Amino acid sequence: MLNAKRTVKDLKELRTLTATDGGGQRVAWTDTWLKAREWFKDKLRDLPVEVHQDAAGNIWATLKGESDQALLMGSHLDCVPNGGWLDGCLGVVAGLEVLRRINTQYNGKPPVTIRLVDWADEEGARFGRSLLGSSAFAGTHTIAADRGRTDREGVRLEDAQKKCGVDIDRFPEAGAERKNAAAYLELHIEQGPVLERKGLALGVVTGTKGVERWGINFTGQAAHSGSTPMNVRKDALAAAAKLALEIRSIAGKHADAVCTMGSVKTWPGIVTAVVGRCETTLDQRDLDPKVLKQMFEEAQAKSRQFAEEEGCTVEWEKIWSIEPIPFHPELLAFCDESVQRASGTAFRLPSGPLHDAAEVARAGIPTVMIFTQSLKGISHNKIEDTLEEHIEMGVTALDSLASRTMKWILEKR
Amino acid sequence: MLNAKRTVKDLKELRTLTATDGGGQRVAWTDTWLKAREWFKDKLRDLPVEVHQDAAGNIWATLKGESDQALLMGSHLDCVPNGGWLDGCLGVVAGLEVLRRINTQYNGKPPVTIRLVDWADEEGARFGRSLLGSSAFAGTHTIAADRGRTDREGVRLEDAQKKCGVDIDRFPEAGAERKNAAAYLELHIEQGPVLERKGLALGVVTGTKGVERWGINFTGQAAHSGSTPMNVRKDALAAAAKLALEIRSIAGKHADAVCTMGSVKTWPGIVTAVVGRCETTLDQRDLDPKVLKQMFEEAQAKSRQFAEEEGCTVEWEKIWSIEPIPFHPELLAFCDESVQRASGTAFRLPSGPLHDAAEVARAGIPTVMIFTQSLKGISHNKIEDTLEEHIEMGVTALDSLASRTMKWILEKR
Repeated sequence: MLNAKRTVKDLKELRTLTATDGGGQRVAWTDTWLKAREWFKDKLRDLPVEVHQDAAGNIWATLKGESDQALLMGSHLDCVPNGGWLDGCLGVVAGLEVLRRINTQYNGKPPVTIRLVDWADEEGARFGRSLLGSSAFAGTHTIAADRGRTDREGVRLEDAQKKCGVDIDRFPEAGAERKNAAAYLELHIEQGPVLERKGLALGVVTGTKGVERWGINFTGQAAHSGSTPMNVRKDALAAAAKLALEIRSIAGKHADAVCTMGSVKTWPGIVTAVVGRCETTLDQRDLDPKVLKQMFEEAQAKSRQFAEEEGCTVEWEKIWSIEPIPFHPELLAFCDESVQRASGTAFRLPSGPLHDAAEVARAGIPTVMIFTQSLKGISHNKIEDTLEEHIEMGVTALDSLASRTMKWILEKR
Repeated sequence: MLNAKRTVKDLKELRTLTATDGGGQRVAWTDTWLKAREWFKDKLRDLPVEVHQDAAGNIWATLKGESDQALLMGSHLDCVPNGGWLDGCLGVVAGLEVLRRINTQYNGKPPVTIRLVDWADEEGARFGRSLLGSSAFAGTHTIAADRGRTDREGVRLEDAQKKCGVDIDRFPEAGAERKNAAAYLELHIEQGPVLERKGLALGVVTGTKGVERWGINFTGQAAHSGSTPMNVRKDALAAAAKLALEIRSIAGKHADAVCTMGSVKTWPGIVTAVVGRCETTLDQRDLDPKVLKQMFEEAQAKSRQFAEEEGCTVEWEKIWSIEPIPFHPELLAFCDESVQRASGTAFRLPSGPLHDAAEVARAGIPTVMIFTQSLKGISHNKIEDTLEEHIEMGVTALDSLASRTMKWILEKR
């Protein structure tokens, strides 16, 4: 029997063990993270599972089934400094409960193999590289780019990993874990306000949005604020301000698209000078690659128009981008059913933030996610929370989704 | 006979003595500034003038006349680091030439007393306090506020002054120099593009604009750029961007008004977060106190409106302000005549930047200024320049203005 209340109890136990007054401290490659993982492995001791850490530091618990075809479930125990108690942990601990139920139901031998995973370093909080373990699993990780990363104290990622028994040169070996992976399910807190605003406990995640992330730099002419008439100025801030407002119209044409100017820097940046150079950042996201492309092109065209209007020039510098990653259509349909049954409504939404599930889906493994409501939409903060009844609904939905997906794996075989 | 070409020659001589490849280095309270002032005092040795440094470090050369009533002329030899060859020097060296002419014409005994002044530290480049010497003269200087000022190396203003023979505690004694001051004339480079754009060599300065200088801080809610839908954001940058554009309309309603947002800072200021706090600065200037007040009130009202529209709050923090200082109407009329005669046109314009003349006018002494055209409108830079023929016209205009003002002083007596 599934005991969804036990998931809440387990999560609280983990919080007591690893949080401070400032919030969760399960930052990857730290002692507190190792403590959280030891707790997790302790919980697994009651089950007839094989447990090991792969070459990228991901922990796998495998309940061997009649078939080698495997249903994967999981998420990440690591969090940002002063983080919440649910971001990541929820999916691991809920998956543990589902694993228990399946083990009990099938007397330790389910029809398909069940694997629970705790991905290593989803957040990238300490070394700036998110989705580290899942990208090694997916084979999209590049050792060269990450080897030299350091934290604020100058500790190298490579050295911090060694202390946790992980050798960066062996990362590609984590790809072996993809063998027989037939599907991947992940329960996660939304980390945004959409479900709460709709009064919904759960949501069906359609995929992770693609991201275009750019630096946009306007150059005009610094000038004395007292002696330079308004009509002869080349005000780089004015061009940037127009773009800061325009990106809202650009996003507004599409249902779930977002555009954000998160940083503005001005030079000379003093009260007595017209801004001669203004450096901004733009982050654009949507699940539809055509929408993403259209928004990117519109922002570029508008930035050029505004630069010209203000007698300025503009350059775009790429920061980062990733394509949209839609989840699996059949799993989405199963997810609709499970979420509907557990919470009364099946509302679909894309995820703005990335998740390990995106890496798994990129590797070609059928994937889907369930979101639980996020109170006040706040995450990466100690006040991050979900109502206990919503957590329980999430565990229940994940459990029925797992059953349906197991059946589907058998049917496909 | 006035020799306006000699002014150009003198200015070049001073430049050779005190500039580097980077530009003028006559920063107040430095050795190079003292060298410039020694050069100035050397030039005065050919004239029957009494020379002394007042308690605030201003240098006075007095040609005693039939009347004690004194015509004052001058400007400042100090400049910003890597500054130009004309900003300040022009008025002192042109005044020197006019003094020479008057001395020759009247055989050392003009009808009114003529005083040439080199104000100390107009720029405030090293210690951040501009109009230092002229404010001591005007009696508007406050010792307590300036005593503790330090430069980038931590040297105290008080100590730097001591090395130049100036004791900050004796600053108020400089007020004694106001005795018998009947008028003050100053020739200065425009430091802006207005005259060049109008194709004019000279301009009649109607006064110095009043300034309202404020920090304006918008507070919204930082949020994840991926998970926060556009319509629930409280984007502090959006409110600031609206104001950055609105201030142009606010200034645009008035002929000579300017409004500048010179600095924008964003928090958390990262590509992946909606801006939760945006700190900006606003500098507003006009010669008409009613216009200045109206612009200030409009900007305040608009900032509140924009904050409300964006779900943000806004606070205003005063940085600094000064009232508009109009020059003397009769001297303005004489200035019109002199500038007309020297250059063919008498165009009136207010000064956006402050000048020592503003402090003198605040002290109740009838004051007027003449501007020479500034090539490309650029100042505080080694490329600062005025055509030599325009410099000569400026000296000629100052000279005839001095003659007319001497007559006026005698008439008033």
